Amino acid sequence: MNSALITGASSYLGTRLTALLGARGVEVHAIVRPTSNPSQLEEMSPAPSLHVHEQGTSGLVEIVESVKPDVVFHLATSYRREHELGDVIGLVRSNIEFGTQLLEAMARTETRRLVNTGSYFQMFRGDRPLNLYAATKNAFREVLEYYRDAFGIEDMTLILYDIYGPGDRRGKLMSVIQHAQQAGEPLPLPEEDPILDLVFVDDAAAAFLHAAQLLEDGVNAGQQFAVRSSHRHRLREVVEIFEEVGDRRIERADGRFAPPTRRILDPWEGELLPGWKAEVSLQEGIRRLLAHPVGEQA
Amino acid sequence: MNSALITGASSYLGTRLTALLGARGVEVHAIVRPTSNPSQLEEMSPAPSLHVHEQGTSGLVEIVESVKPDVVFHLATSYRREHELGDVIGLVRSNIEFGTQLLEAMARTETRRLVNTGSYFQMFRGDRPLNLYAATKNAFREVLEYYRDAFGIEDMTLILYDIYGPGDRRGKLMSVIQHAQQAGEPLPLPEEDPILDLVFVDDAAAAFLHAAQLLEDGVNAGQQFAVRSSHRHRLREVVEIFEEVGDRRIERADGRFAPPTRRILDPWEGELLPGWKAEVSLQEGIRRLLAHPVGEQA
Repeated sequence: MNSALITGASSYLGTRLTALLGARGVEVHAIVRPTSNPSQLEEMSPAPSLHVHEQGTSGLVEIVESVKPDVVFHLATSYRREHELGDVIGLVRSNIEFGTQLLEAMARTETRRLVNTGSYFQMFRGDRPLNLYAATKNAFREVLEYYRDAFGIEDMTLILYDIYGPGDRRGKLMSVIQHAQQAGEPLPLPEEDPILDLVFVDDAAAAFLHAAQLLEDGVNAGQQFAVRSSHRHRLREVVEIFEEVGDRRIERADGRFAPPTRRILDPWEGELLPGWKAEVSLQEGIRRLLAHPVGEQA
Repeated sequence: MNSALITGASSYLGTRLTALLGARGVEVHAIVRPTSNPSQLEEMSPAPSLHVHEQGTSGLVEIVESVKPDVVFHLATSYRREHELGDVIGLVRSNIEFGTQLLEAMARTETRRLVNTGSYFQMFRGDRPLNLYAATKNAFREVLEYYRDAFGIEDMTLILYDIYGPGDRRGKLMSVIQHAQQAGEPLPLPEEDPILDLVFVDDAAAAFLHAAQLLEDGVNAGQQFAVRSSHRHRLREVVEIFEEVGDRRIERADGRFAPPTRRILDPWEGELLPGWKAEVSLQEGIRRLLAHPVGEQA
């Protein structure tokens, strides 16, 4: 792989994948929105080439045509755990419309290979979407199947679980636990003890690189694979590992977190991405996490 | 059913369904775009109440809240047999985004019952989408499954085939044959002789009414059914029936029509809508068609 085009490069995982590709000598091009802040990308060495995309499909064709990447990594997404009325249009446009435009641009420029991003939220109670975010991801999968069938797109979808690591500013669970431990504040927990599938960010980035290599090798196109950990943990086990690694007690406020009605207690265990596995144990990942205060850039 | 809300009421089938509902004493409300021409709807007796919808989701919630319909008929769509670059956004917004907004408005106003419109183009070579139009229909189905599961929407999807009848200005096959016969011009035909599933417009409208009644009776929610004819015909048989009924020969220009690569030669035969069947034979339908010149309002 000589060149790659990435969407969602400014996201937490996107910055890590961009850095990994750069370190491997891949020429990286990032499609960014006019409103996104590319400062983290600009500061990288090597820095990716940035291509600003306004709304139109023809502009996207021009970008893909100018880059002619060996692989496209599609990480751009809009995420809402529970959507509000005002989120509907944004979720459809970010998660379906933009991806459709991207596929159209690929089809018109004979750009074949796409690594797409899915979520275990698409596998609630078997195969149902947990929320509107997951439903829009399912919807995009239908569009992707059309472009695969009609235009020979060679795609692979990676189903992601909970990604964590230092420098994460998304306010996810691991940051909440880290903050409670650092600040000595009570940690609100649900009554139940859900199973978590936590994947260190660098392992997830490596999965994308590996998926692109599989596509270049001509295998597994049109399939989806789970990018999940080697060992799952219950929520309270995770808290205990924080205590061990950080050598500091965390006060548990049991029942103080009221979970939403639709929630996943036992994440889907799909087929693992062939030839890849998570290398970073939860103990090691939390050690790396705790080397940086919450939200600090790693 | 006392009241119904219909999208796509200005379409060919939409006007017939609106008229049928009005004739059955149903209070009909139509959601129309600012750009659509409602003159045909305004001239009806009884005329449906028109509600202009701009882009926003909240405006749609207000419309659905004000109407509180017993059933929503979702016929609005954007159709392209083969899409151009500039069609991508319009197809996504008409066929996915607007429907998602409609479902959101239904969920927020406790409006439960939806009759949705599918197409046999979604069943190319088994279950593949024929074109981007069909792919967006498939995508919307994923969104619909979410609203069904999370918000208790009771939906039924009617898979439509080739609808025909007098007053059709869409320039479809039946109008082309009718025009060739009237004008005494050669009819361009493909080398092959595809099977057609032709449904008279009033039969299709009756299927929507019947589907709503099934939902009101609490049966068949969450299912999709074929609204197909009782008797399928090959293209050249259809031409022969035009000749018999219209008592005028049609000159066949064999091979002068070059069909697209992706085309359906043998339409999917899905489960028929329970309790409904097409009443109008092709002979009778063509007789009614020929009573009106091409494109004349019936």
